[in-house]
Amino acid sequence: MQVNGTPFRSIWLASDRPEVLVIDQTLLPFAFEVRTLTTSSETALAIREMVVRGAPLIGATAACGLFLAAASDASEDNLRRACEELLSSRPTAVNLRWALARMLPLLLECSESERADRARMLAQKICDEDVATNSAIGDHGLTLISEAANACPHRPVNILTHCNAGWLATVDWGTALAPIFKAHDQGIAVHVWVDETRPRNQGASLTAWELGAHGVPHTVIADNAGGHLMQHGEVDLCIVGSDRTTRTGDVCNKIGTYLKALAAHDNGIPFYAALPSSTIDWTISDGVRDIPIEERSEEEVSHICGRDSEADRLVRVRIIPDGSSAANPAFDVTPRKLVDGIITERGVVKACEDDLVSLFPQDAEVRNI
Amino acid sequence: MQVNGTPFRSIWLASDRPEVLVIDQTLLPFAFEVRTLTTSSETALAIREMVVRGAPLIGATAACGLFLAAASDASEDNLRRACEELLSSRPTAVNLRWALARMLPLLLECSESERADRARMLAQKICDEDVATNSAIGDHGLTLISEAANACPHRPVNILTHCNAGWLATVDWGTALAPIFKAHDQGIAVHVWVDETRPRNQGASLTAWELGAHGVPHTVIADNAGGHLMQHGEVDLCIVGSDRTTRTGDVCNKIGTYLKALAAHDNGIPFYAALPSSTIDWTISDGVRDIPIEERSEEEVSHICGRDSEADRLVRVRIIPDGSSAANPAFDVTPRKLVDGIITERGVVKACEDDLVSLFPQDAEVRNI
Repeated sequence: MQVNGTPFRSIWLASDRPEVLVIDQTLLPFAFEVRTLTTSSETALAIREMVVRGAPLIGATAACGLFLAAASDASEDNLRRACEELLSSRPTAVNLRWALARMLPLLLECSESERADRARMLAQKICDEDVATNSAIGDHGLTLISEAANACPHRPVNILTHCNAGWLATVDWGTALAPIFKAHDQGIAVHVWVDETRPRNQGASLTAWELGAHGVPHTVIADNAGGHLMQHGEVDLCIVGSDRTTRTGDVCNKIGTYLKALAAHDNGIPFYAALPSSTIDWTISDGVRDIPIEERSEEEVSHICGRDSEADRLVRVRIIPDGSSAANPAFDVTPRKLVDGIITERGVVKACEDDLVSLFPQDAEVRNI
Repeated sequence: MQVNGTPFRSIWLASDRPEVLVIDQTLLPFAFEVRTLTTSSETALAIREMVVRGAPLIGATAACGLFLAAASDASEDNLRRACEELLSSRPTAVNLRWALARMLPLLLECSESERADRARMLAQKICDEDVATNSAIGDHGLTLISEAANACPHRPVNILTHCNAGWLATVDWGTALAPIFKAHDQGIAVHVWVDETRPRNQGASLTAWELGAHGVPHTVIADNAGGHLMQHGEVDLCIVGSDRTTRTGDVCNKIGTYLKALAAHDNGIPFYAALPSSTIDWTISDGVRDIPIEERSEEEVSHICGRDSEADRLVRVRIIPDGSSAANPAFDVTPRKLVDGIITERGVVKACEDDLVSLFPQDAEVRNI
């Protein structure tokens, strides 16, 4: 998407030399800097230090890291070492493991001299496929926004989103934000209510930054405010992402999503989850019961990072009493009864098993155990 | 309530001289300091700078300020000047106006030489009445917690609260927290989930501090987390305060209360509002339609204050991108269909007009216009 008029992806390969370029997301939203990665070790470090984050982007970054390894030393030993190093950078990232498992056998089956070129081609393909998937999600979601726009021709469509399911979490377009970018680019007037998304504030920092840089009108709100806005007709539809979705349509997403879905339901406002089919877990039917919820560090609740305007530097401050502790469940599950539709790369379907299975019959069958 | 073993009120009169003592709430939760006020001007400044806050406490503080004025110069001119100055310190605070309107005629009707003593007596009475009202709310709410404790004899009762409806907002006990303090003091095992309550964080700072200082087990959570906890049986009941309640039982309280009430309803968890009858607006029947919601400064969303551990000082940091704006509706309305009961100083009733009017027939009649 655009950053103040210039198109960017969150990661790209230099055209003329073995270098990978990424946007340093640790500096956002207060500074925009592109970092150059020249080795697989630098790439692993960038993943570990969350210079890049978001499951699809991590997978694409690992693929690019393996290309850098092949470009410097294409021996099997070095490629295997690079894979191990990249895998250890975020051990639980499924996309990272998937990208490397896809590339490594294809590299080892050709000669050492061919491996760098093939690695480059494969890394580029993984990046391009992610962009195509998200663009398709955007096209399908766009129809929903167009319909909403037709229903309110004299004002912008107000869309509420939670957390960051934007292009910074992917290679481009994002998932929940893809339809919004498409609508804006087509000239449909949209305005986005951006939940700040405590405790890590990915909404206030990343989503607001993305929208602002691309020129999409938006307003940051406390996570508490959405229900009130919905009660008063200030929200036309909600679009969120998903980290994991059951075959029945229960949506696991950043903590607090469930509360917004409840408010949307109570006020008759459509609530959609936008997600690539790769995040559907075909083995699970009851999300609240069966999806384990990560409990993250209490420091994400007890402390917050921001820019001290006086000193013009980033500061981390404590915001709860010294004697108090905090709990930090990172995700929650929105039951399918509250989800009006799921936006995938193949189309929009109801949040129910029959419709999801019909849309992805092969995936559903293979993984149905 | 207690601060590390010593009983305190949020405001009290010195026994031997015309001085008023208050806890400086601008320093909480990181420092506990008592400030001495010796003039009505100092008192007005303390209200203006939010050294004291919370509607009941502001009223009590104004009463004490008028006593300080009478103690230094009991002339009608000086008392009227003090009233004006105190009124201008928080122009929209209803309790402030109420306290002064109650005291001034009673002072003017006696001789100048008697006024200081009478002002002291009246200020003390206003403070004591607030404590008695809140204590009664606590006693009635205690029965609800006792019942919950009987239902789970082998573990603490888990109570979720939002914002700060504690003793720091009143003279003592608080409203929503009064039943919790009473339960804890009686030896009932309780544990409180404290919503941090963005954007002003009164939960994470004031409620967590109050509970910790009194020794009540508690855990701070992001406002997003309550729904997930309720889905998983981690919440037995919710108790919140109220800034304004309709004669029909709609509850206007700090923004985000509505979302928690929705989650409680969806999970079959009792949701109570604890409030003095003085906050019931008998002229309003439809809260969502008729209660105007204050839109506060966007800086409360875009910035946050905390303690920089390295420098050991309070710092205000920006947490949204420079180009982004924020919206800040400060309250929302929880419709009565989501409220299981209202805890008042006269007892617990259903959130419906018949029950509220039966409990407060005179108030309901006088103000029914």
